[in-house]
Amino acid sequence: MKQIFEIKDKNIINNILDKAEYGTLALCTNNEPYAVPLNFVRIDDDIYFHGALRNKKMKMLLENPKVSFSVVENYSLIDSDFSSTEGLACPATQFFKSVSIDGTADIVHSREEKAIMFEALMKKLQPKGGYKSFSDEAYDQAIKATAVVKLVPSTIRCKFKFGQHLDQERFDMILLHLEKRGNALDKNTIELMKIHRSNNAL
Amino acid sequence: MKQIFEIKDKNIINNILDKAEYGTLALCTNNEPYAVPLNFVRIDDDIYFHGALRNKKMKMLLENPKVSFSVVENYSLIDSDFSSTEGLACPATQFFKSVSIDGTADIVHSREEKAIMFEALMKKLQPKGGYKSFSDEAYDQAIKATAVVKLVPSTIRCKFKFGQHLDQERFDMILLHLEKRGNALDKNTIELMKIHRSNNAL
Repeated sequence: MKQIFEIKDKNIINNILDKAEYGTLALCTNNEPYAVPLNFVRIDDDIYFHGALRNKKMKMLLENPKVSFSVVENYSLIDSDFSSTEGLACPATQFFKSVSIDGTADIVHSREEKAIMFEALMKKLQPKGGYKSFSDEAYDQAIKATAVVKLVPSTIRCKFKFGQHLDQERFDMILLHLEKRGNALDKNTIELMKIHRSNNAL
Repeated sequence: MKQIFEIKDKNIINNILDKAEYGTLALCTNNEPYAVPLNFVRIDDDIYFHGALRNKKMKMLLENPKVSFSVVENYSLIDSDFSSTEGLACPATQFFKSVSIDGTADIVHSREEKAIMFEALMKKLQPKGGYKSFSDEAYDQAIKATAVVKLVPSTIRCKFKFGQHLDQERFDMILLHLEKRGNALDKNTIELMKIHRSNNAL
């Protein structure tokens, strides 16, 4: 039985990308993979990140621009006894939302596009503002000294796991246990379980 | 100036791995990388995870067992005005701990080693217990139907960024701003800034 559901709604996918502080980029050269976490920002359908001009990541990207990018929004750990009455460990799991993007990385060269990226990244991670616009020449040197990369997605997959596959009895048991444990993450998890249960029933 | 510090202490590295609910695995075949998040457990110096017997991840691992694995422990976003008096965005950053592991993935075949892995994974993610031991034959079918992978590390890099490179004035400004904002993550971040400042001064 399918335990994890594909999500196609672009607004839902964008919402995950716009909330996430970081994602993990997978690169590969000479059949050697490399996983590196980074802050990023989505602009329209593309993912942007920045870094040092000459580090392992940039060297690999120049050699092979194919990348895979993973973003996770983690929810409650679901203990095995939340839904098993037979004392088996198997039902233990974790609920989550995830976005997985395959695509090609392009190095951004224009000062203008770099500035647009930095404005967007700051707006995402420091929404209160409180800094000069990146069009200011005070940033000229810093922008020149920083690499900006645009990931153009070829495929985007989004998956949700919130117990959508469970029969009503087990689903309700999990809800009860999460309410009882009741931490902040559990409360968010309960809300999402209910939303996606009813979506699924439609 | 070095902004990110390498950590060599194995206990500190193990502590990050043992606290993390998930990490992101990078795989690669035919020069196509693939990033996939997963729950995992450390046993001694190795990283174990499990999954379906036949999915994209397992197919790729059989073709190329070289992997890279990334674990992040994220701390406070540091707003630019926490340490800039000139209104520049550049000092904006995020403090973090990260572990990056390169190594080789071996498929685990023995029921015994698989059971040891599942016991350890459950102990990590459900420390309260409340389930039958994996030596119980009730698990025979489930264990047979699940792939277990052991990542044997060749290199482990751990990095910390807690403002260790900043001059005292900027460091103290950030502390003050974090105290003022004062959410739970900020409180943890302050504690780690202080610990790693004094370690660094030694």
